[in-house]
Amino acid sequence: MRCEVVAVGTELLLGIITDTNSSWIGEQLALSGIDSHFQVKVGDNFERIEACIRTALERSDAVICCGGLGPTQDDITRDVIAHIMGGGMVRDDAIAGEIKRRFEARGRTMSANNLRQADVPVGAVTIEQMPGTAPGLVCPIGDKVIYAVPGVPSEMRAMMEGTILPDLRARSGAVGVIRSRVLKSWGMSESGLAEVLSERIEALDQSGHATIAFQASGIEGLKVRITAKSGDEAAADAILDAEEALIRPILGDVVFGINDDTMETAVIAQLRDRALTLAVAETLTGGILASRMTAADPALETFRGGLVLADRDGDSGLSGTAQERAMRLAEQARKTMQADVGLAAVTPFEREGGTPGTVVAAASIKGEQALETFVLFSDRNRMRNYGVISTLDFLRKTLAGR
Amino acid sequence: MRCEVVAVGTELLLGIITDTNSSWIGEQLALSGIDSHFQVKVGDNFERIEACIRTALERSDAVICCGGLGPTQDDITRDVIAHIMGGGMVRDDAIAGEIKRRFEARGRTMSANNLRQADVPVGAVTIEQMPGTAPGLVCPIGDKVIYAVPGVPSEMRAMMEGTILPDLRARSGAVGVIRSRVLKSWGMSESGLAEVLSERIEALDQSGHATIAFQASGIEGLKVRITAKSGDEAAADAILDAEEALIRPILGDVVFGINDDTMETAVIAQLRDRALTLAVAETLTGGILASRMTAADPALETFRGGLVLADRDGDSGLSGTAQERAMRLAEQARKTMQADVGLAAVTPFEREGGTPGTVVAAASIKGEQALETFVLFSDRNRMRNYGVISTLDFLRKTLAGR
Repeated sequence: MRCEVVAVGTELLLGIITDTNSSWIGEQLALSGIDSHFQVKVGDNFERIEACIRTALERSDAVICCGGLGPTQDDITRDVIAHIMGGGMVRDDAIAGEIKRRFEARGRTMSANNLRQADVPVGAVTIEQMPGTAPGLVCPIGDKVIYAVPGVPSEMRAMMEGTILPDLRARSGAVGVIRSRVLKSWGMSESGLAEVLSERIEALDQSGHATIAFQASGIEGLKVRITAKSGDEAAADAILDAEEALIRPILGDVVFGINDDTMETAVIAQLRDRALTLAVAETLTGGILASRMTAADPALETFRGGLVLADRDGDSGLSGTAQERAMRLAEQARKTMQADVGLAAVTPFEREGGTPGTVVAAASIKGEQALETFVLFSDRNRMRNYGVISTLDFLRKTLAGR
Repeated sequence: MRCEVVAVGTELLLGIITDTNSSWIGEQLALSGIDSHFQVKVGDNFERIEACIRTALERSDAVICCGGLGPTQDDITRDVIAHIMGGGMVRDDAIAGEIKRRFEARGRTMSANNLRQADVPVGAVTIEQMPGTAPGLVCPIGDKVIYAVPGVPSEMRAMMEGTILPDLRARSGAVGVIRSRVLKSWGMSESGLAEVLSERIEALDQSGHATIAFQASGIEGLKVRITAKSGDEAAADAILDAEEALIRPILGDVVFGINDDTMETAVIAQLRDRALTLAVAETLTGGILASRMTAADPALETFRGGLVLADRDGDSGLSGTAQERAMRLAEQARKTMQADVGLAAVTPFEREGGTPGTVVAAASIKGEQALETFVLFSDRNRMRNYGVISTLDFLRKTLAGR
C-alpha cells in the first residue's frame, strides 16, 4: 500500500508557510505501515495540481491532497478532483447548512463564497470530522483513492486520525492494528541505548510481536519507540505494556516520560505527587527555564515563578564559587517566591577555570541541598536549551532519589 | 526561467526532519524572479530520485537537489546525477585533499567513506563555497542544469547565495540585480497598511522601478517588503533608499526595524543609545519576555534580568488594581536588578472585570512612569507571545517619545 502526499498552495512554494503537514502525515503513514515514497508541493494552479494528482495516482494507491479547500477563488483542489473524477460537483445541503450554522455560532456574517465549500465532487463522500468550515473528502477512483483535507493543521489531523488512516489501513488489507508507544530518554547516546537494549531487540526480531526503534529529537533527548501489531487495540496495547515493563528496568532513570510527556511535565508531576511548589533562578538560560515551566503549568499551581539574573564577574550580589552562587540563588528563588523547592543554574566565570560550557545546577528542597555540574559542548543557543533540560533532569533525579 | 526543488532523504518522508530547506530556497527563487512550480521530497532510493530529477528536467529549466551528498551508503544523489549525465564519476584530488585537511583540522580521524564526497560526475563542476566536507555540484544537461547541495541548512545557504542564485539569474538572462528590503511593522493590519500606502503602490505600478508587498509573519507583525530591480546593486539600493525615505513618514512609528531586526533588538538599540539598562517583571508571559531579551543581548550588557511571578488573586504580595500591580512590579524589577528602566506586564483578575485577554504594561524610566492597556484576543499561548511583543512595543514608543 503506497500513499503519496500532495500539498497545495502557492504560499508553500514561496516559503511564506513551511509545509509541516506533510511531515506529520509522513510520520503517521509510517506508523500505520503504509509506504510513502513521494511528497509534492504545488501552487494554486489547476493544470499543475491535476498533473501532480495524476502522477501520484499512477505510482501510488492513494493520494492525500492537503490544502486548497477554502472559500476563496484560489482554493481549487475540489474542482481539480471533480475534473479527474469526471462527474462534476453537487452542493451538499446538509454541509451548506452546517457551514451557515457555524458562522452564526461565531457571530460572523457569511459571504456566499463560503458555500463553495459545500460543493462535493460526484462520487465523493465527505469526511465526518469537520472541525472548521471546510469538509474533507474521500474520492474513490477505481480501486485507488484521493483524500482531500484542509491545510489548517488541527483540521487535517482530526480527519487523518478519524477517517483517513483507518480507511488506508482497511484498504491495505492489514489485519489488525498498529500501536506504538514512545519512551522519552535523557542522558544516554543512541549507541548506548542500542547496546543495553540489544537483547530485547534481538528477541523481538525473532518473535515478530513488536519492534524497537530510536529517534533523536534534538534538544529533547532520544525517543525509544516500541511498535506492536496485533488483532485489536487491546491486544496491541498488552504487547506494548509487556515490552515497556521489560525495557524500563534496563533503561532505569534515563526514561523521564512517555508519548507526549516533556521533561517539564515530568518534573511538575513529581512535584505534585509530593505536594511541593517550585521556584527557579537562572543566569545563562535567561528565562527559558521559567517560560517552559509556565507553559507546562499555565495556572502556576506548582511552578511559582523565577528570577532571571545577569551573572557577571564582579557583580556585587553574586560572589563566591559557581557552586556557592548556584546554591545561594536556589535558596533566594525559593524564599522570594515562597516555594518549597528552589532550583538554580549558573555558569562558572572564566577565572574560575572549568571547561567552557560548564553549567552548575543547585536545588534546595525545603532547605535540603543538592548540586550537580554538567559540561555541555555546543553553541550558546543550544547550550542554553541543553542547560535547561539538564537542570530539570537533575531536579527530576534528585526528587526521585528522596 | 523555471526551477524545481528536489529534496532527498527518507527521513524527510518519515517526518523525522521537516523540510525547511525547500521553503527557504522557494523564497530566494521568488526574490530572484525565478518561477518555482513544484517542490518534491523523495527517499534515498536510486530509481525514485532518478524519476524525480527526470520529471523536473522535463518541466523546468533547472533542478536543485538538496541532500544525499554525505559520505554514507544511502547518500546517492551524486551517483544518480552521474547516471543521468551518462559519463560516470572521477575523484577530484583537490577536493579529496581538502576533505582530509578539514578532518585533520578538527582532530578527527577520517574513514575512507568520506572520500566518496570527492567523486564528481564527469561534466560537473564543484561549487566554490564549501563550508562542510560535502562539495556542491553544478551539472549542465544540455541547456538545462542540475545543482546539488548538501541538506545541512548553513552549507546549502552558502552555496545558494554564493553560486546557484547568481548562476540562475545569469541563465535567466535577467539584466541587473534584484534587491529587497523589509520594513517590520507592529500595530497596523494588512488592509490598513495597504490603504495608507495605496498612493505609493500605484506610483510604483506606473514607474515599474520597485514593488511593495505585504507579508504576515505571525506573532512578529507584518512585513512591508520593497523590491527593486536595477543595473547593479548600488543602483538597486539607491531605489530602495529613496522608497524607504518616502514610506517611513507615511507609516510613522508602526515600523520598528528593517530586515533582521526584531522588536527586542530594536528596544535594546534604543536603550543603548540612551545609555539605559533594563529589567523586566512578568506574570502572564512567564519568562518569554526575559528569554527573548537575553537571546537578543547575550552578554546582558543592557538587559539586566527579570522576575517571573505568579499573579493570582489573593496572593499577598500583589494587591491593588492591575495598573497598580503592573507599576509596582516595574519598580520592583528596576530596583531588584539595579536597572534604569523597569518594564512589567500583568493581566487583570476576573473580579476586576475587563475583557479576557487584557494585558496591562507599565514602565518606569528612572522613576518616570508610563502605563498602557492592550486587549489581545487569542488562545493563551498566542496571547503570551502577543503580550510580549505588545509590551516591548509599548516601551519602544515610550522611549521614542521622550
